[in-house]
Amino acid sequence: MTHPALKLNDTVHQRVRLGILAVLGEAERADFSYLRGALDLSDGNLSRHLQVLEEAGLVQIEKGFEGRRGRTWVSATARGRAALDEELKALNELIARVNGGG
Amino acid sequence: MTHPALKLNDTVHQRVRLGILAVLGEAERADFSYLRGALDLSDGNLSRHLQVLEEAGLVQIEKGFEGRRGRTWVSATARGRAALDEELKALNELIARVNGGG
Repeated sequence: MTHPALKLNDTVHQRVRLGILAVLGEAERADFSYLRGALDLSDGNLSRHLQVLEEAGLVQIEKGFEGRRGRTWVSATARGRAALDEELKALNELIARVNGGG
Repeated sequence: MTHPALKLNDTVHQRVRLGILAVLGEAERADFSYLRGALDLSDGNLSRHLQVLEEAGLVQIEKGFEGRRGRTWVSATARGRAALDEELKALNELIARVNGGG
């Protein structure tokens, strides 16, 4: 029987990136400063992890304006939502096994 | 409201270490080669992560013999079990939020 930990994928599982994908799983899209605040990150740390997710095709980043204010919008791609689903499924299995249900 | 991702702790959350603590959460103790097989790790990778967990006081490592065969037993400490509990609680919260329950 394969341990569910083997189904975890570092790109998605890493703490900050899981947080980003989870926030994007709750909302259609979020702007950079919202993500930074919600996950208590520095600009640099958030940028770095967004880049990893973007390069993996898991998020899409769009720059736009709201009035005269620049905004950076981040949304999960279909692949990003699927990857988050897989991750949460594996975590649920892992939790069930620890709790004696698996 | 604090996002549950902020409650995740890299020492415990990292994929391999979460796997180790999860296996130890299912069993009293496990030997090195069982962990290596269950989590599909190399000797070096497993050793490295066990060292991080041992230095954090989350696992205890004992060397012994079974007949003439050397065995390395690994078990979670009370602190390790508590840390795994915290992690799984935070993950459950995160899953519930993504699923619209939080």
